[in-house]
Amino acid sequence: MKKAAAGIDIGGTNTVIGLTDEAGRILSESRISTREFTHESEFTKALIQVVRSQADETQCHLEGIGIGAPNGNYFSGSIEYAPNLPWKGVIPLAAQLEAAFQLPTVLTNDANAGAVGEMLYGGAKTMKDFIFITLGTGVGSGIVSGGKLLYGHDGFAGEIGHVIVEKGGRPCGCGRKGCLETYASAGGMVKTALKLLQKNDFESRLKNYPPEAISSKIIYNEALKGDKTALQVFEQTAEILGFALANSAAYTSPEAIFLFGGPAEAGDLLFKPVKRSMEQNMLNLYKNKIALLPSKLKAGQAALLGAAALVWNHIK
Amino acid sequence: MKKAAAGIDIGGTNTVIGLTDEAGRILSESRISTREFTHESEFTKALIQVVRSQADETQCHLEGIGIGAPNGNYFSGSIEYAPNLPWKGVIPLAAQLEAAFQLPTVLTNDANAGAVGEMLYGGAKTMKDFIFITLGTGVGSGIVSGGKLLYGHDGFAGEIGHVIVEKGGRPCGCGRKGCLETYASAGGMVKTALKLLQKNDFESRLKNYPPEAISSKIIYNEALKGDKTALQVFEQTAEILGFALANSAAYTSPEAIFLFGGPAEAGDLLFKPVKRSMEQNMLNLYKNKIALLPSKLKAGQAALLGAAALVWNHIK
Repeated sequence: MKKAAAGIDIGGTNTVIGLTDEAGRILSESRISTREFTHESEFTKALIQVVRSQADETQCHLEGIGIGAPNGNYFSGSIEYAPNLPWKGVIPLAAQLEAAFQLPTVLTNDANAGAVGEMLYGGAKTMKDFIFITLGTGVGSGIVSGGKLLYGHDGFAGEIGHVIVEKGGRPCGCGRKGCLETYASAGGMVKTALKLLQKNDFESRLKNYPPEAISSKIIYNEALKGDKTALQVFEQTAEILGFALANSAAYTSPEAIFLFGGPAEAGDLLFKPVKRSMEQNMLNLYKNKIALLPSKLKAGQAALLGAAALVWNHIK
Repeated sequence: MKKAAAGIDIGGTNTVIGLTDEAGRILSESRISTREFTHESEFTKALIQVVRSQADETQCHLEGIGIGAPNGNYFSGSIEYAPNLPWKGVIPLAAQLEAAFQLPTVLTNDANAGAVGEMLYGGAKTMKDFIFITLGTGVGSGIVSGGKLLYGHDGFAGEIGHVIVEKGGRPCGCGRKGCLETYASAGGMVKTALKLLQKNDFESRLKNYPPEAISSKIIYNEALKGDKTALQVFEQTAEILGFALANSAAYTSPEAIFLFGGPAEAGDLLFKPVKRSMEQNMLNLYKNKIALLPSKLKAGQAALLGAAALVWNHIK
């Protein structure tokens, strides 16, 4: 009987559930609406049902269950006070699934799961020290040092998106000001664009869009066409992100930093200026030693693969 | 025969060599002048001689040798381009001592050695996740996560003193600007004092000293007597240090942060405002969870004990 791990990627809108084999091949994949479940117990029941039927259909022997979830705490196995999920408080999801399947169940946040996915199946296969950064609605991170994902005392290590990079800077959803996330997330890039559009006295194709329709994807497309304001957005975003990454080196001295997520798909438009700013701000000790790389995980598979990778990493 | 580890603490001026038992008792201690040895090979010979005679005198069985040195690289066992030592380039000291004694030899920088000392013999005995900060001529750090000291890809992890906390701030010895070290080191405090003396239009007892004679110790003494400028120095230093520590939490989410070294001996004068600033700048997720503690290592013993602790930690 083929061995498989179940991966569950819980997002604010949808939850993706799938089985993978140890080589990282996806054997089965389903999607349920997270928001549809007003009660967490109904959600848990649905997860159990989907995983069971996937195991039956693929005739696989389940080795364990991995869950990537916002505000996921590795040590407690709970989702704790996630602002973007429909259920409030602390949800002991790992314990519930462990009870149902009698299998090892690992839960952590999505960026940590992504880092483990990068280590097992992506560009970090040969690495023991790297940082995995997700650029999307927010900025998340998973830090691997000495071959181990860092969880910290309470399971919440690796929140580089909430390092303050501009004192008194932009207000952040966390209640503070100037977090990296307010500049380097997709929404942060849009904020930068809107600010530049107000300030710049030259024309921009971004003005053809209603402000609320501008997205990081649109900024990317216009930058590709040479729009000066859109290019400035990438420059300014990269400037701050590179600064934050240079400071990050002083903590865990990684071999590489991986960027993942929508804005990271802009390729050279983002990577070149980030690398430049990173090296400009880098302590000599680390200069030109740390590779800045695009994640090798496929955008649509990364979260699921990362969640399942938690199981294979746990077994190993 | 009693078991002992040799600890070697290499400083720019002096090198302290001693033996300790596993409980952290110092069995023997000697001191040689670092600067006296213009050739590194003479220095190494002297080290070997001292360790041998200490082992003979105490009738101990040596288990290994631990070395704390500026720019000490754990992986290579070398001192690499240390600006404050009389010998230039790369000095493969661990290999030289290992060849002489045929014993495990561990070399790292002094702050990392201090962190291991804190873990084995100080306030972090029951902890697996903490950060050890040394405040002195510079600002050093050792980061322990999941029970292991972080070395990073190249052996140089944990340089929190060189995290940039003020963009375009004070020039640092590293060639960049605004590093934590330029504010929170003993010299940084003096710089803050001199700046305040220029700016403040009220009297200060610090004006009774020639500027070049002002030290962090003098600032401390005058602050204790209520001198307003001296108190401001502590407030401003603490403001920046607390900010840096709050940002540090987002990397490894430690249980505690230990402060060690001259300025840390100022007690509440430093700890209270650092704690305040740290909590003010802290992400909610970590708020009021991280203890800020004075190191429990004795000032005069810490470096030696930390160096020897590298051996016991290695054996364990």
